[in-house]
Amino acid sequence: MYDGVVQELIDELGRLPGVGPKSAQRIAFHIVQTQTFDVSRLAKVLLEVRERVRFCEQCGNVSESEVCNICADPNRDRTLICVVEEPKDVAAIERTRSYEGLYHVLGGAISPIDGIGPDQLNIRGLMPRLETGEVVEVIIATDPNLEGDATASYLSRLLAAVGVQVSRLASGLPVGGDLEYADEVTLGRAFAGRRIIGQ
Amino acid sequence: MYDGVVQELIDELGRLPGVGPKSAQRIAFHIVQTQTFDVSRLAKVLLEVRERVRFCEQCGNVSESEVCNICADPNRDRTLICVVEEPKDVAAIERTRSYEGLYHVLGGAISPIDGIGPDQLNIRGLMPRLETGEVVEVIIATDPNLEGDATASYLSRLLAAVGVQVSRLASGLPVGGDLEYADEVTLGRAFAGRRIIGQ
Repeated sequence: MYDGVVQELIDELGRLPGVGPKSAQRIAFHIVQTQTFDVSRLAKVLLEVRERVRFCEQCGNVSESEVCNICADPNRDRTLICVVEEPKDVAAIERTRSYEGLYHVLGGAISPIDGIGPDQLNIRGLMPRLETGEVVEVIIATDPNLEGDATASYLSRLLAAVGVQVSRLASGLPVGGDLEYADEVTLGRAFAGRRIIGQ
Repeated sequence: MYDGVVQELIDELGRLPGVGPKSAQRIAFHIVQTQTFDVSRLAKVLLEVRERVRFCEQCGNVSESEVCNICADPNRDRTLICVVEEPKDVAAIERTRSYEGLYHVLGGAISPIDGIGPDQLNIRGLMPRLETGEVVEVIIATDPNLEGDATASYLSRLLAAVGVQVSRLASGLPVGGDLEYADEVTLGRAFAGRRIIGQ
């Protein structure tokens, strides 16, 4: 449709997740037409990311060094490991500033439909981290959906043998939400997980 | 939040139009985690676009040569010029395969609120194209909104002096749409532009 390289850019952008043909076209023309847009910086960062980013040898999070900033931080509480599915979950929890422990990134969740079993996940790397006896509690923070729940129950069975405390993040009503708009499963879990606050 | 270069990539992606912080994060992790994604090709195309793409000297469309493929095509009907706002409008019209003439890309529409007057648009380039007398009709295909309409009436007044036929694309009900869902302005225009089909 377009002259060579513009169409190539649209095609390449269209390969990105969540970028459809219309968005790809819009982004491409923005890049072509906006002289202030620093295209060389984006290109440089793209190449640097692939070159420099690897996965932390300890927790599996994205990192620019062998061990990520969190694992290397002497101020983190080494008795706690929070197990998450993706690096972006680490970022989400870090933003709360309410967790001081370490992480373990699985790289996904168990999903037989997608052909992802325990062996495709970074579960093997978790076991040696518990062997020193330093870790007191493993907090399972996989997504509150079918795959996340399956992964959580698989892990809790596996960890029962190790003799470490295992917990799972609370499910319930989102703060700021409306009770009447909560779906039945969430509302059901909120009931099941209710806390005594008086008497 | 993230280790250096990943955050840099998220920031750079977030500068693209229509890409919010969440999408930028999602795209960045896709690039980091998907080994099959060819990041060097995207980086290469980004640089090539800025280097190779310019604007056609005749019509103002994006092009890799001084004159774009359409202007250079001897089979196009040189008696017709279709005036559009953006290069992507050219692509949209080309997809219909129902127009064989030339184009003229204004690079926007008159919008006093955004500080865009006739002088900021590629209107000056249109006049010399009409001087040869070869052009019989100028079809104004600016967007059917306030800015597009303002641009269309400005152009029609300007072109009245040149003595060329000026037309504007029909406004009306979109094909495949539902009459009851059409907004009042569209429905009003559909009435005003109705065509006799019998008697």
